[in-house]
Formats: sequence, structure tokens, C-alpha cells
Amino acid sequence: MNSSFFGEMLATITERGRALLDRARDRRGEPGARSESLVELCEELLSGRGEASGAALAGDILAQYAELTIGPRIAFFEALANRFGHDPERLTAAIARWQANPTDKTAAVVHTAAEPRRQELLRRLNLAPGGTAALVRMREQLIDALDHREDLAAVDADFVHLFSSWFNRGFLVLRRIDWSTPAMILEKIIRYEAVHRIRSWDDLRRRIDPSDRRCYAFFHPALVDEPLIFVEVALTREIPDAVAPILSVSRDALQPEKMTTAAFYSISNCQRGLAGVSFGSFLIKQVVQEICRENPRLQTFVTLSPAPDFARWLDRERKSEHSNALSEEDRAALAGLDRPGWWQLVSAREPLQEPLLRAAGWYFLRARNRRGLPADAVARFHLGNGARLERLNWLADATENGIEQSYGLMVNYLYDLDDIEKNHEAYAEGREVVASNAVKRLVRKAATDVVPAAG
Amino acid sequence: MNSSFFGEMLATITERGRALLDRARDRRGEPGARSESLVELCEELLSGRGEASGAALAGDILAQYAELTIGPRIAFFEALANRFGHDPERLTAAIARWQANPTDKTAAVVHTAAEPRRQELLRRLNLAPGGTAALVRMREQLIDALDHREDLAAVDADFVHLFSSWFNRGFLVLRRIDWSTPAMILEKIIRYEAVHRIRSWDDLRRRIDPSDRRCYAFFHPALVDEPLIFVEVALTREIPDAVAPILSVSRDALQPEKMTTAAFYSISNCQRGLAGVSFGSFLIKQVVQEICRENPRLQTFVTLSPAPDFARWLDRERKSEHSNALSEEDRAALAGLDRPGWWQLVSAREPLQEPLLRAAGWYFLRARNRRGLPADAVARFHLGNGARLERLNWLADATENGIEQSYGLMVNYLYDLDDIEKNHEAYAEGREVVASNAVKRLVRKAATDVVPAAG
Amino acid sequence: MNSSFFGEMLATITERGRALLDRARDRRGEPGARSESLVELCEELLSGRGEASGAALAGDILAQYAELTIGPRIAFFEALANRFGHDPERLTAAIARWQANPTDKTAAVVHTAAEPRRQELLRRLNLAPGGTAALVRMREQLIDALDHREDLAAVDADFVHLFSSWFNRGFLVLRRIDWSTPAMILEKIIRYEAVHRIRSWDDLRRRIDPSDRRCYAFFHPALVDEPLIFVEVALTREIPDAVAPILSVSRDALQPEKMTTAAFYSISNCQRGLAGVSFGSFLIKQVVQEICRENPRLQTFVTLSPAPDFARWLDRERKSEHSNALSEEDRAALAGLDRPGWWQLVSAREPLQEPLLRAAGWYFLRARNRRGLPADAVARFHLGNGARLERLNWLADATENGIEQSYGLMVNYLYDLDDIEKNHEAYAEGREVVASNAVKRLVRKAATDVVPAAG
Amino acid sequence: MNSSFFGEMLATITERGRALLDRARDRRGEPGARSESLVELCEELLSGRGEASGAALAGDILAQYAELTIGPRIAFFEALANRFGHDPERLTAAIARWQANPTDKTAAVVHTAAEPRRQELLRRLNLAPGGTAALVRMREQLIDALDHREDLAAVDADFVHLFSSWFNRGFLVLRRIDWSTPAMILEKIIRYEAVHRIRSWDDLRRRIDPSDRRCYAFFHPALVDEPLIFVEVALTREIPDAVAPILSVSRDALQPEKMTTAAFYSISNCQRGLAGVSFGSFLIKQVVQEICRENPRLQTFVTLSPAPDFARWLDRERKSEHSNALSEEDRAALAGLDRPGWWQLVSAREPLQEPLLRAAGWYFLRARNRRGLPADAVARFHLGNGARLERLNWLADATENGIEQSYGLMVNYLYDLDDIEKNHEAYAEGREVVASNAVKRLVRKAATDVVPAAG
Repeated sequence: MNSSFFGEMLATITERGRALLDRARDRRGEPGARSESLVELCEELLSGRGEASGAALAGDILAQYAELTIGPRIAFFEALANRFGHDPERLTAAIARWQANPTDKTAAVVHTAAEPRRQELLRRLNLAPGGTAALVRMREQLIDALDHREDLAAVDADFVHLFSSWFNRGFLVLRRIDWSTPAMILEKIIRYEAVHRIRSWDDLRRRIDPSDRRCYAFFHPALVDEPLIFVEVALTREIPDAVAPILSVSRDALQPEKMTTAAFYSISNCQRGLAGVSFGSFLIKQVVQEICRENPRLQTFVTLSPAPDFARWLDRERKSEHSNALSEEDRAALAGLDRPGWWQLVSAREPLQEPLLRAAGWYFLRARNRRGLPADAVARFHLGNGARLERLNWLADATENGIEQSYGLMVNYLYDLDDIEKNHEAYAEGREVVASNAVKRLVRKAATDVVPAAG
Repeated sequence: MNSSFFGEMLATITERGRALLDRARDRRGEPGARSESLVELCEELLSGRGEASGAALAGDILAQYAELTIGPRIAFFEALANRFGHDPERLTAAIARWQANPTDKTAAVVHTAAEPRRQELLRRLNLAPGGTAALVRMREQLIDALDHREDLAAVDADFVHLFSSWFNRGFLVLRRIDWSTPAMILEKIIRYEAVHRIRSWDDLRRRIDPSDRRCYAFFHPALVDEPLIFVEVALTREIPDAVAPILSVSRDALQPEKMTTAAFYSISNCQRGLAGVSFGSFLIKQVVQEICRENPRLQTFVTLSPAPDFARWLDRERKSEHSNALSEEDRAALAGLDRPGWWQLVSAREPLQEPLLRAAGWYFLRARNRRGLPADAVARFHLGNGARLERLNWLADATENGIEQSYGLMVNYLYDLDDIEKNHEAYAEGREVVASNAVKRLVRKAATDVVPAAG
Repeated sequence: MNSSFFGEMLATITERGRALLDRARDRRGEPGARSESLVELCEELLSGRGEASGAALAGDILAQYAELTIGPRIAFFEALANRFGHDPERLTAAIARWQANPTDKTAAVVHTAAEPRRQELLRRLNLAPGGTAALVRMREQLIDALDHREDLAAVDADFVHLFSSWFNRGFLVLRRIDWSTPAMILEKIIRYEAVHRIRSWDDLRRRIDPSDRRCYAFFHPALVDEPLIFVEVALTREIPDAVAPILSVSRDALQPEKMTTAAFYSISNCQRGLAGVSFGSFLIKQVVQEICRENPRLQTFVTLSPAPDFARWLDRERKSEHSNALSEEDRAALAGLDRPGWWQLVSAREPLQEPLLRAAGWYFLRARNRRGLPADAVARFHLGNGARLERLNWLADATENGIEQSYGLMVNYLYDLDDIEKNHEAYAEGREVVASNAVKRLVRKAATDVVPAAG
Repeated sequence: MNSSFFGEMLATITERGRALLDRARDRRGEPGARSESLVELCEELLSGRGEASGAALAGDILAQYAELTIGPRIAFFEALANRFGHDPERLTAAIARWQANPTDKTAAVVHTAAEPRRQELLRRLNLAPGGTAALVRMREQLIDALDHREDLAAVDADFVHLFSSWFNRGFLVLRRIDWSTPAMILEKIIRYEAVHRIRSWDDLRRRIDPSDRRCYAFFHPALVDEPLIFVEVALTREIPDAVAPILSVSRDALQPEKMTTAAFYSISNCQRGLAGVSFGSFLIKQVVQEICRENPRLQTFVTLSPAPDFARWLDRERKSEHSNALSEEDRAALAGLDRPGWWQLVSAREPLQEPLLRAAGWYFLRARNRRGLPADAVARFHLGNGARLERLNWLADATENGIEQSYGLMVNYLYDLDDIEKNHEAYAEGREVVASNAVKRLVRKAATDVVPAAG
């Protein structure tokens, strides 16, 4: 009687799946059939022989794959890399035809011939009931293998290519998550929260049930009851400068007429197997619109984001003799960070505030990675989405984790619908970090401070 | 309060769509902006400049496209064909790299370089809210244009390629259609029924409401409330040999314990823009399983199908002096078909039955099209799915349309789950028409008859 | 897979019902069992013997009742009247106890002893699966019988008493009816529309699908998929003065920003068996709130109502020699109403407009029935709800039916939320007809006109 | 986007409620209005003056009531008892009329006149949006007051009378509770579980998610998202003789083909305000049917029930010098129960098993309360439903609570669909405790044992 979250609509898919799989397994259980290796089955699937029973055959392959231990699994990935790549002979011939007569039609032949055969294989595996979910799991395991086996990267690229098509934004469905959401979804929210850990069902309830809290997730019809990504939002009176008040156990919900700001304080991807397929940008924009529509009074859309690599960067700069980022005085002052529990003592933490914010200003505005992009991954994400670096917040996350990754620093990125496009272009074309004057001043001040020190 | 069919789940998509579109239009309405042509907008969308606002820009393009009159529309298709094909320079360079070092990685570069740019364009247009539906409509118009402009075929092939990926079976959702289905879906069933016209809501009700009738449709999450394909099924006591009793206005529902057979008497595609993307095969198999699960007593799954080209073929053979298909006697006898209303008079129709069934046997078992496949399109579909040609039914459809297209002939194709794969392979590999002995005998008899005539 | 309208929630009830009924029937089918009469079964149900199987026994009784022909049915009603009334002995004893010691407790015993036994019987029958629906149907048949058998009135009063409790407003659920509503509900809307007949599904669609149309119905959880009452609403630019433009086949939907008025142009009760249980008042007020919430711009809530008894009243007055309602001139002028097709000719209808409106003013403001209430039943309903008689509309319904019942006259009753209570009290306590000045002037003018005529 | 459990359907009711309440409060906030006491408002509501605004006035009364502190609340209950009882003058007159002419019609007048006025008051309060829920809460508080104020019992009886009508079985909806149920429902299941406490969400999940567990609850449309009563069921291989294995943290779900038995191991009422309105009997029977339908293999339906008063009874018997229930030997042996932790030591518990089971046999088969019914309340419930006392289980609940209330004893009551009616009648008419032979033997044995001891 109870329908699962998308259930009424989608139950059919999985049921069907199970039915077909049963048939497939029965068939494969016949004597001799077991000896067909997975790779042979894949060739059979590609060959088109079993076209009428493609879905069943695909289901069979996925079921057998699911039972592989790690060794055979790597071997299977190797086979995908080596035996299901492109066909050089076919490609050579196609190139010759195109060179003789360079039309769109002959180019299409080149296109097809240059495609690794595993792409078509994955497409056919996707026909199996539950195929998409199985392929997402398969890629999770491939990612694990990738750490040690860079030769599998091409296989991974094909997964990303296909997933990007299957999980394109047009097929994503936004759903609000609240206290009336089925428990089977909520337990996944608890499990997948990656920024500020959800410690219990009570903690969860405090994040999704109060009238000044929102949570939204993207779902995809082929992954029943599995959120892809979700965001937690606090509706606040002003731009928040710390996370503890948001997560506080004992707070009253803000009255609607006092809300001015929607603060996105946590965004978590749920499916490791979909890494590299980007949903976050769409999610934020769609949630902004959803909240706007529901509460037209809200004017400010802002994140309260972590700076996960800041502490590591700062430690490096403090150790480096030639850091441009830190003046001698600031470097000296920041030695206070080495004192255990510095943030718990006013006398210990106060002298750190200004130097640390100056360093953070440099980190966000000037520090670059090898590809010339901002050093901070979270910054790259939001700036790439068209947000503005709005404010750096001192001791905004004084949890153990917050201190460890960023000495407590958190960041507000502001989404101003009118500027998103302009900001994005400035970033995309000129790698410009669009920032508020307050943030810019930190670095100008840092620069000014630095000059005499350097002089 | 009422949700549309998929509504609760999907409403968000379209609403969001409209909101974004409004913004896009406002922006484009600025002075000067209007002068940017559709093609320029497409280049902008591809360039990655407007990445942050990709969905809005895509929505803008689709909105402008929707207002084009036929001339500019064809011009737009021409631009897709000519300006958004592959990039020969890039492809030449990629080929050179591959030839120097033929790895999967360099092949991937060739693959990408050989891809027409319009594929990526269509993928990005699909990001617009309602993008998928708009692209399906765009292809409808492209198909119309194709009749006169074969140079657009490459553009069409790219649509089919992408649609096949987006509408892959894993994302299709089967729903039963019955008298509790929302009216907005039902009116589309009435409109799209292509085999036996639905004349009224009462006629519809007779097809979906009685306990011995079933109707199922495939839906896709990106096409809200739009069936893609549907099938009408009668649960019967035996394999039906005529359509009139099934559609009869005054009949009682068969008692469950007397049902033995599920007869698929009508399959209709709904979206012209998805022509060439095949759903029918999956639909039939999934419905078979659905019905099996619900009513395990049912053992026989069979169609009652039209033979839409039979009359035309027969007329040609009757006119041809060198027809192998007809003996002289049969040809003479079949002259009776020229007599108006022949089917209404016992004396006129009786002499026709045997010769016509012999001719039909030949048509289904021997007649081939240019590609060496069975002449009958419906037969190709079911045989390709693994069905068996089970029975030819004399005067099974005596409506004006039935007489006109097939002299009243209808065909049962049998889906025997145990033989589907074997049948499919026989057809796919050897072009063999798997048929019952009764049908085969018609031709053997015809052949025997023919020999002396030829001798 | 398809759920009925309330289905997911309520399917359980009916299924269970069927299961239980089957058991009941099996049991009753035993030899000998059939000889137990319905009345005996009712006594058994009341006796409490079959308490454990009360629901099954009740189901059994209702099933046997359903198969009665008209004669035995009347006999059963007679038994309800005669054998299941109150118990005089028990009541006499209870009265004695109360008179000896008149407390609430002894009064409660009197209360119970004075209750007809059939009330408890009906309550127990209601325990059967589907019991409520069966009792509603039973009362329909009782109402038919009542025409000839006034002795059954007490039985009917008990039905009304129980239905009023079971169908109390707290258990009614308001649902919007639109084009996404299941067909099984919509066909009932077509069937039950009692004011302006719905001629086809297209006609229905024009009333519920356009963006400036609304339809709402009350449902009750115990009557699955059965609307109890529904109202059709047009959102308009001003108070409508005729029904034809509202029902027009060829009209464009009004743009939202131009809507000022919600016009209730049709209210239909659906369940004859619930006659006397009043829903209309609640429905109108709840729909007003629903529409307000959705479209806060709407300021005016008004009906466009028929005057079903006006023509009959007017004809009587025209024949009466001593009518106070009509002046001699008006009576003479109104003779034009006897001319066939008078409304189609300008010259024929123009001289009628003023006299007829004057007569209508009198009819609504002065004419009273035997109980001293306004003569018009529709007026009594709306005035009792707190509405104001706002405007009388000349030739507002020129259909055959409209001419016949009211010479084309229709009425606007205005629901002004601020005045509803005040208006209601004026009507309830002083029988005052609250009317706009425009309507009042009609009668004052009539009176003035009358005086000289009388003088 | 998310609908609450019954939400889509019922949201309307509460929203509407709030809207109306706001209006009511505004109006009542006017100077002078506040001085109207609750009782005056109740008189106004009854008077029919505010009929047009009855729902708003009722809402107003309930809102004011909700803010009463305990003193005024009791005063309000007193007013209900004293001022809203029956009207003696009216009743005297009605009796006179009936005595003069004792018909059903005059009896109806007596019936109405004898009804306490508060019944009509409660009916009208129920018209308020959310009225039913508010009245259920009101009765909770009345029950608390009843402990000290027996004079309020008549008021309570009126609540029970009305609730029995409103919550009649025909309006109850059975829903399965599982892991896809909204969290807002599940947290109530955790809170309301009264037999075996649910310690955490993980504990809950173990009870409702595994494939061999079921949980069902009754809901009522007027109490949105509030379960009325629920039952927890384990599908097992045989009749369970202890609760620990059922609640075990580490167990595997039983395979479907091994299931033979549905064991009802916990039934909890949720709404204290509905005490005295019986749902349990219907719930068990409906769940039996639901489970039968889903899993036709299941043949045995049995409870695993506590014996909450057994320890207290046994202690009394052990102290009593003239106990018939215990032989001297057994009484001596049972002294072992006074040894702390007796159940944890084999040597301590073994000698207790037989005497304790004999005592339990006596308790269930012979011990009676003042009204001559079985002493055990749980036994009365299941026997009254038609179940059979099947088995007494030694040390079946060794939790602190289980030891305390029943020295670890638990009971299986068997629901055999074929015998339910017969069993019920035997119990209802003859107060017979239908029990298995095994249980009966315990007492026969006890009796036999007793004789020589007494001899």
C-alpha cells in the first residue's frame, strides 16, 4: 500500500527487472552456459545476436559482474580497456574514406569507428532492468581501481561521457526533503551528508523540519529512491557568519516576516559513481528559484561554505621561506596557530584574527593551482557558477574538523541573480575572482603591509 | 490540488522552465539583443561563454525557434547541416595524432573531432527547461522538411542518435491506462490511436474500462503527460480472428476464469518526432510480463495486426504479367475483388477466400523488399521482435479502411516467450520468416498449384 | 498501477469489503440459512450475538437487501418503521426512573430508550465494508417510496440524523476538479450537473480546463470516487449578467491580471440519498477561501443563479385578480410573455423588460411561502448563507429551460465575507431579505407605480 | 512538493482551518468581545444565531479553550456537566405528549429532549477546522480530570458516544507502515509503542523494514497524519514462544517459502482521547485479511501477548492463605520467585517452571474479576474477539518489565478464521474461555495435584 518515494511511478521498472533477471539466470544455469565468460557475454551482447533478448542478456552480465571478487573485477576492467577500445582497422578505413571525400557523412563514419566499443557495450548494459544503478556502482569500483591503475582512465572517461548524457539536467527532478519524506530517503540524507555530519535522526529533524529550514535534492527516474545531490538551506535574518547557530540544538524558528536571506550551508553529492557529472550548479539555481517562488521576500542568496584546503595551504606558506602570501609579522603572529586549543582562549585567538584573515584573502584572491585557477576547490565551484566571494568569516566553524581543515574559517559566496552571468564570464574568460570590496581590501591591506616588510 | 499524471513529481521542471524563459526573454528584449540571430545564439551556447546561464540561453533559443515561420525554419535546419557539422581542420589534426600514435586516447580525440558540432548543440539545448519536448517538436518539423531536402538527412541522423540515448529503455516508465487515468492523458490516447480509430469517449471507455481489456503506455520523465507509445489488449477465450467482436459496442466482459489469451490488437506511436527510436519491442515484452504477473493463467500472447500494404502489393501482382505469386486461376478468381462491395455478399466473397489467402501466404513468406526483407512492414516489426507468423484471418477487418488496405485481411503474430530469442535469431541472421504450419501450407499449396500452371 | 481518485488511500476498504462479503455469502448459502429472513438477520445483528462477525453479518444483510425487488423492499421499510421503532415498555420504565430522580444519568436512560432501534441497526449496518454507500442507496429508494407512504417519514428522519453525523463537515474533503482528474470522476460530473446541462466531454473540458475556470467538489472517505456536491466557477472581469458568455464554445481565457470576480454559476448535489444533509453552504465558503488564497486579487464573490420558480409564480400572479405584486399596466404589458418566441424579437421583448424586472423585484423581496420565508428556494439557500441579493438579470438565460422556468431571469447573490454573518442574522432572525439598493429600487418603483394605478 | 501522509488529500482541511481561525481571532480581539466567556460563546453556538459563521465560532471556542489553564479548564468541564445537560422542562413536556399519544414521532421528541445539550454542542464544535483533533485532545484532559471528579462521568459518556459514531469502522483506513512511510508518522509509532518499547530509529527499522515483518495502522481522515492504533507482526516459521528472538538485533529475514505463521506481537493504541472507542478487533481481522491476500501460504494467525496483571495476581494468591489457585507445594516452590535474578540461573529457574505454568493456567482459565469475566484484561480482549487461548510461554519476556509484570510469562492467542464467531459466542454468552487442550491440561493437572495436597 505504501508507495516508495517515486514508487507508484517507477516500481514497474525494478519489478520487471527482477523478473527478467530470473529468467536470464535460469537460462544461464544450464550446463555449459556457466563456462561462458563475462567477456564472451559482452561480445555476444555487442554482436547483436541476442538483440531480441538484449535486456535479459545485459541483466545477466550485470548480475554476474556483481558477484565478482576484486581480482576478476580488475581483470574485467582491463578487458574493457584493452578489448573494447576502438577498432584500428575500421578506423583506418573510415579515415581513408573521409580523406577521399571529406563530407559530414564520411566524418560520421570516422566518428563511429573512433568510438571505443565499450561505449556501445555500456549503452546496451543500460537496457537491463536496474541497469543504470548497476553501472553507477560499477563505476564506483572502477574509481577505486583507478588509484592504482591509470591505464583504466580511458574506460572511466567513457563512463563519464555516458553518464553526462543520461543524467542531463532535463531528466533531474528536484524534490523537497522534509519531515514528511519517507524514512528510506532520509536515512540516505543522513548517510551522505558530507559537510557537517548529521549525528542522529533528531539532528536531521532540526535541519529539515523547522519552518526556517529547507532541504532539496535532485533525483533521477532510473535511480529509484536514491538522491543524487542535496543542499541544506537556512532562512535567516542576515548573512550567517558561523555554522554553530544554524545547527544549534536549542533555537526557535525565525518568523517568516524576519527572513531576508537563504543561506546554503551544506551541499553533498550522494553517488560516488557519478563523480565528474556536475549537478551542483543546477541544483543551487533551481533551489534559488524554488525558494523565491515560495517566499518572494527573500532577497539574498548566499552560501556558508568550508575552505577545505586552506589550513594545508597556510601551513605550507608558513613553512616556505619565500612566501609572498605572508608578511613577516603575519607569519610570526600565525605561529599562535600551533598552540593547542588556541581558539578557545580569547587571549590566544584575538591576535590571530587579522593575520589569518589577511592570509585567507590572499589564498582566495591570489593563490592559484597548477592550471592557473584559484587554489580552493569550493571557490572554483561557486565562482564558476557565477557567485561572488562575499565574506570571509573568522572562527565560523570551531568544530574539530573545522579547525583542522581551515583554522575555523568559513566563506560566504553570494548568488546575485542579476550578476551570475557576468561573474561567470569574468571567471571563465579571465580567471577573475569576483569578490566584494571587503574581501579585496584584505589583500590590498596585506599587499600594503607586505611592501615595507619586503622593503 | 490535483496533480497531473506525473505531476507531483515533474511539475517543478516545467514551472522552472517558464520562470527561466521569462528571464531569458526579458534579457533578450534589450535593444540590440534582438539583432543576434538564432545561429549566433547557437554559437554562443556552444562557445561556453554563457555556460553559467546555459539553460536560460538554451531556453531562449528554443523560444525563438518556436516562433519561426516555415522559411526561416528551413534556413535554420540548413545552418545546422552546413555550419554545425564536423570541423575538418580539427579532424585532420586529430587523425594525424592518431596515425602517429594509435592509442585509445588519440582515437578519442578523433572521435570527438569527427562529431558534428550540432550534437553538442542539441545536448546543450536539451538543458533548457522543457528542452526535450521542444527538440522532439523540432524534429517533427525537420521530418516534414526532409521530404524535399535530402541534404538534411545528416541532421536527422544526429537527432535520432541523441534521442536513442535519451529515450533509452531504462528511462521509460510503463503505466496502465484505464478509466481512472486523468482525462488529459486519455484525450491523447484518443488522438494518437492510429490503427482502429477511437470515435468517442464512450468508444475509449469500452477499450480501457472493462475487466477483460488492458491498455498500457510508455512515458518518459522529460515529456510530462505525453504517452510515447501505447498498446491496447483484449483478454479473450481464444486467438481472435476479427477485430469487430473486440470493438463491439454491445458485449459482456469475459469472466476471468475463461481468459486464455492476451490479444494485442492495436499499437500506436504517439510522437512523430521520435520516429526511428524503437519502443514497440520493449513495450510488448514488458506488457506481456505485466499481464503474466497479474493473471498467471494466461498462456497465449498474440497480436491481431493489420497488413497495411497487402492490397497494394496484390493489385500490383494482379496487374503484373509475370507474377510468381499468383497462379492463373487465382489471378482470375481475384478479379472478383474489383466488384464493389464484394465482401458484403456471400456469393461474391466465398470464391475469393482461398485464392486471397494463398496470395497472402506468398506475400508474407516470399515477397521481399529491395533490402531482401519481408515486404510487409508490420511483419518485419513483429518477426524482428521474435514473434511467429501464426495465422492469416480472412475478412477480419471489414471496415472501409480494412478493405482498402488489405482486402480485410488481418494477421496474428504469436509471442511465445520460450521461442522469442530463437525466432529473432532466425530472422536476424537468415531473414527467415518463422511461421506456423498452417501458414506455410498456404504457400506450399500455392506452389503446387502454380507448378502445373507454369508447366 | 493506476490508483483511483482516492484510491491508494481507500482501496483497502472496498477490497476488504469484497472479501468479507464473499465469506458472508458462502456462509449464508448453507442449506437452511437462506430461510432466515432479512428482518431476522437484522434482529440478530442488533442482538449482539454475532458481534465478532458484525461486519460480515451487516455485509450479508446489505447484499440481500440489494437484491430485493420493489415489493419486498417496501416491506422491509415497513418493518423498519414498525418493528424497529422505540420500545414503549423500556421507555415507560426509563421515564419512571427519571421522574423519581431527574438527573442527567436517568435522562440518558430515557434518551436511549426513546431512540428507535433502527438507529442502532443502521449504525451496525454501516460497519459493513462499503456500508455507507449501501445505506445512501437504500435511502434513495426510501425517498422514492416516501412519495406514496408518509408513514415511512420517521424512518427517513433517522437516516437524515445519522447521515448528518457521518457526513459532518469535518470529514468532507474538498478537491479541485480539472482536466487532470480521472475520467471516472469526470463522467460523474457530467452526469450530476443539474443546472446547466453538460452536453459532451468537450463541453466539460471548456468548464474545467481553461485557466479562468474552476470546479471544486466535496468528497467523503467512505464514498470512494463519488463526489457529493460540486460547484463550477468562472473567473471574470465583472459580475456576469448572463450565462451564455460563460458557456460559450468560442471564447479566450481571461488573462489573470484582468480577473476581479469569481462567479459561481452552477452548484449541483450528486447524491440523491443524501438529500437534506446540507453541504452547499460549506462548499461555497471553502471554495471562496481556496480561490482567495490562490488568487488574492479577486475581490468579488458572486453567484449567477437560476430562479427556478419565478415563472410559475408570475403566471399565478398574472392570473390572480387581486395580485398585489403587479400593477394593472404591468399585468397588461406582461401579456407579451404569452407570445411564442417573444425573447427573440427586439420589438417583442423590449416592452417586457421593465415590468418583468419589477415583478421579479416583488417576487424576491416581498413574496413569501407558507412558512413566511422568501418564495424562491434558491434565494432562501443563499440568503440563509449570508449572501446579499445583488442584481436581477434580464434575459440572462435564454435557453428553452431558462425561458420556461424564469422567463430568462437570473440572479446574482453576492458573498461579501465581511457581511456574511450580519446578513445571515438579519435573515435568520428577522426574515429580512438583504438586497442591494438597485434591487430595492425596483420594488419601491413598483410600489410608487402601483399607487396611482390604485388611486 | 512533498505531500504529507494523507496530505495531498487533506492538507486543505487544516489550511482552511487556520485561515478561519485567524478571522475568528481577529474578530474576537475587538474591544468588548474578549469579555464574552467561553460558556457564552458555547450558548451562542448552540443558539443558532451564529449559524452562518458556525465553523468560525466553533474554531474560536476551541482556540480559547486550548489556552485555558487547568483551573478554568475544570470549570469549563463543570459547565458542560451542569449547564449543558438535558432540559427537564422540555423533557417533562415531551414525556406528557408521548404518554398521551405513544408513537414513534412523540418518542422522537422525548429522545431529543432527553439528549444532553452538550452533545449538540460537541457536534457543532466538530464543525471547526481541526475540530475533531481538538475534541480528542479535550477529552484527554477530561480523562485526567475524571480521576478526581466522578461527577464529570456523564460528560465523558457523551464524548464516547459521539466518538464511536465519528470513528466508526467504515471511516477507518488501514495503511501499511514500513520504511517508506514518512518520518512524521514513524516518529509517532516510536512514541506510541506501548508493549515493547522502541528504543531508536534502528530498532524501529528492524521492526518494519525486513521482508518478514509487517506493521499496519488505522488512520481517520479527520486526524491527519495521526495513527489511531497499530499492530506489529512477525512472519515466522512457527508460533513464537519468546519475544527476544523477534526483536533480536542480529537476525536474518526468514525466506518467504518458510513462513507459516503471522505473529501479532504488539498492539498499541495511540490516542488517549479515544479510550473506550474500540478499534483493536477490527484492526486484527483486517490485517489478517491483508496478510492472507498478500501471502496465501500463511495459515496460522496468532499473537504473542503480555499478561500484564499476572504477577500482581500471583503475588496476591501466594500471600492468601485460602488460595484455591495454588497447591501447597506449588506455593512453596514459587517462593523461589522472591530470589533476585532467579531467571538468570538455570538451577534457580528450573524448579519454578511447572508450578508457575500451573498457576498461570488457573489464572487464565479460572480467575475472574468482579464482573465474572477473566481476570486478565488482554485475555478479555482477545477472547472477546473470538481468539483461542493457545499456549502459555515460560520465560518468554525476560526483560525487566516482562519479569515485573508477569514473571516472564507470555501468551499466544490463536485467531482461526473458521472458529472466530463460534469462540466469540461461547465467550460472550457463556463467559467460556476457549483454550487449547495443552492449556486446559495445566489446570486439570493443577486440580489433580491439588486434591491430594488438600486431602
